[in-house]
Amino acid sequence: MIEVLQRVKEASRVVASLKGEVKRKVLLQMAEEIQKNQEKIITENKKDLDYAKKANLSSALIDRLLLDEKRIKAMADAIRVVASLKDPVGRVIEGWTLDNGLKIEKVKIPIGVIGIIYESRPNVTSDAAALTFMSGNACILKGGKEAMNSNKIIIEILQNVLKANNLPKEIISLIPDYSREGVAKLIKEDKYIDLIIPRGGEKLIKYVSENSKVPVVKHDKGLCHIYVHKDADIDEAVKISVNAKVQRPGVCNAVETLLVDNEIKEEFLKKLKVSMDKYNVELRGCEKTQKVIDVVKATQEDWHTEYLDLILSIKVVDSLDEAIKHIQTYGSGHSDSIITNNYKASEEFLNRVDSACVYVNASTRFTDGGVFGFGAEVGISTNKLHARGPMGIDDLTTYKYKIYGNGQVRE
Amino acid sequence: MIEVLQRVKEASRVVASLKGEVKRKVLLQMAEEIQKNQEKIITENKKDLDYAKKANLSSALIDRLLLDEKRIKAMADAIRVVASLKDPVGRVIEGWTLDNGLKIEKVKIPIGVIGIIYESRPNVTSDAAALTFMSGNACILKGGKEAMNSNKIIIEILQNVLKANNLPKEIISLIPDYSREGVAKLIKEDKYIDLIIPRGGEKLIKYVSENSKVPVVKHDKGLCHIYVHKDADIDEAVKISVNAKVQRPGVCNAVETLLVDNEIKEEFLKKLKVSMDKYNVELRGCEKTQKVIDVVKATQEDWHTEYLDLILSIKVVDSLDEAIKHIQTYGSGHSDSIITNNYKASEEFLNRVDSACVYVNASTRFTDGGVFGFGAEVGISTNKLHARGPMGIDDLTTYKYKIYGNGQVRE
Repeated sequence: MIEVLQRVKEASRVVASLKGEVKRKVLLQMAEEIQKNQEKIITENKKDLDYAKKANLSSALIDRLLLDEKRIKAMADAIRVVASLKDPVGRVIEGWTLDNGLKIEKVKIPIGVIGIIYESRPNVTSDAAALTFMSGNACILKGGKEAMNSNKIIIEILQNVLKANNLPKEIISLIPDYSREGVAKLIKEDKYIDLIIPRGGEKLIKYVSENSKVPVVKHDKGLCHIYVHKDADIDEAVKISVNAKVQRPGVCNAVETLLVDNEIKEEFLKKLKVSMDKYNVELRGCEKTQKVIDVVKATQEDWHTEYLDLILSIKVVDSLDEAIKHIQTYGSGHSDSIITNNYKASEEFLNRVDSACVYVNASTRFTDGGVFGFGAEVGISTNKLHARGPMGIDDLTTYKYKIYGNGQVRE
Repeated sequence: MIEVLQRVKEASRVVASLKGEVKRKVLLQMAEEIQKNQEKIITENKKDLDYAKKANLSSALIDRLLLDEKRIKAMADAIRVVASLKDPVGRVIEGWTLDNGLKIEKVKIPIGVIGIIYESRPNVTSDAAALTFMSGNACILKGGKEAMNSNKIIIEILQNVLKANNLPKEIISLIPDYSREGVAKLIKEDKYIDLIIPRGGEKLIKYVSENSKVPVVKHDKGLCHIYVHKDADIDEAVKISVNAKVQRPGVCNAVETLLVDNEIKEEFLKKLKVSMDKYNVELRGCEKTQKVIDVVKATQEDWHTEYLDLILSIKVVDSLDEAIKHIQTYGSGHSDSIITNNYKASEEFLNRVDSACVYVNASTRFTDGGVFGFGAEVGISTNKLHARGPMGIDDLTTYKYKIYGNGQVRE
């Protein structure tokens, strides 16, 4: 593995110095080649599907694995979107001149080698490769075992484009050892790898976070809350709560727990139940909730649970302070929203809730790189440092100081 | 320890929401109290000095431990400088409005709880406390064993000011278990601590980096290079090299290795030796260097060594490329400088050398938060992520997104 990583590190120096126009040209060729080679991709993908069926994986999982003409075109189009993004490398973040004439520039540069460990659909392979390439980084990818054949052919196609452009194929690398042991080794190699991004289940993220010597930016769970304050517009609160739960329940920015102010619980909960029933959402409530609407009892376990499903827990609270304390205790620092027309309450919520994204009067579902205008996203970071919330290609860079002198020495 | 850390976490929420004017007022009181209590500090410091003498610590180390009236005033003045800095908390880094009317603000916020583990002089205690406080963080401090009594009294004085202002004293905390085991426990508590900053010897930093579950920003060694290019102004190159070595040899931004272009080795090395001899600098050179000036032979070990002393290693190189590769192989990513009047060479060096600070025609000694204009520095980060190079109070913050809506839901 070390030999491969040495070559990836070398390759990272090449990609770091590529001009924006070269990166765009190469990415557009990659998009073309992905589409031209769709038969090859579908053939390899069939192997993964056969394996998945034999292993009795769920039909939902098999559907996520599937690549067809339409999905392959979507993969290519996603690469084209990345090719159209503003190149972050070389951007001067700040610049100033000292009294002695030294000119200091703080400049964005690529991070270096980024390891991405994921469990999801094969399109993550081309997305991750395109995003790291456009931001001037080399990547080393480890997808799910169930998508191994699909991932391998996608990487091979992208590497062929690199080679045709006289670039080292190691700019986009597959992990040499496609196993758990391979991951275990990879995350120890801080000499060659500058950042590890784990995307996937809680177990994977916990394992990587606890064992990595390389800095980690996690894409962990989203246990998102909506707090319906006493001064909320009730109909708006219902509409937002329903949207945040049902518009796409299986994603990290969907709401999992509603906190409802005691003063407006009667009107709000009754209206909410009518709306949620239309979407067959299972409601689980605290004792006070149960006194207003007919729902199953929420247990302590519910406040800790990211359902990723049409289930919602509800707790009646007596104050803004209680709502914030609940979020501090059970939240995952992802996205939380207050519904209110009270200025002081909205400001206090925005300031005191320490989540990547804090909302007033809007659905938590907006936490998304695409929605935020980043063009494409690496994912949504639940780290507090380096990158927080939706991560665009800007977040795949770090900085250095360039200092221009003309003979200055320190007195 | 957990109970203390819970209280520190709680305290971090209090300090995070303090207004700038309150923080400044408290800091100025702290500076006053440090000076008013100087007798107490000197008494406690004597205990540390007695212990150090009994333990036969070096006179240099004992001098670093010593606190007298002058040094205590300097500590107080450093706190006053921090009190005068611009408050980074709440600064809007970016802001924009989406087509659907959602207003997004990316806002600087405190990191939370910062653990600082250091081995140096007792003034680091008050510096670190002031910097974390002004940036809205709680801190948990672990200084060197040899300065334990001094550190304890300093923290007690600062805590008394917090209490007098009805603030939780845990905003500035001493590690509850002042031992190696205490550190081992501390760096595992990622639930309560958001960032660990180790400052000190290589052993400490290696231990913390390898074992911490909490994100780490290292203040590691500086193996800084100056490359004298063939198109350098020779006299300027000599002047800068001498400054970078002798102006303060014991610090991380002092130069340790000179790379000298083969074309100008004769004139440069002879002039260099004359100047360096005046300061009794021991020169160690490669074989080519030895053919020009009378110096001891540099071994492979020398290229890896941060002398922190009046010793300098010299290597003759054939090209800019060889110089950059040497820096990539042996450098520590801290500060490196090229001396040249060649435009292309300067740009290539600035772009390809991946260090926190890259210089043209200036001494590496300028890598310093004070010099850069940050007012005060936490130290110099050798991390690639979160904070790189001189760290000011701005680098003790992270960010969150505040999103202002009026009923938006996702379609």
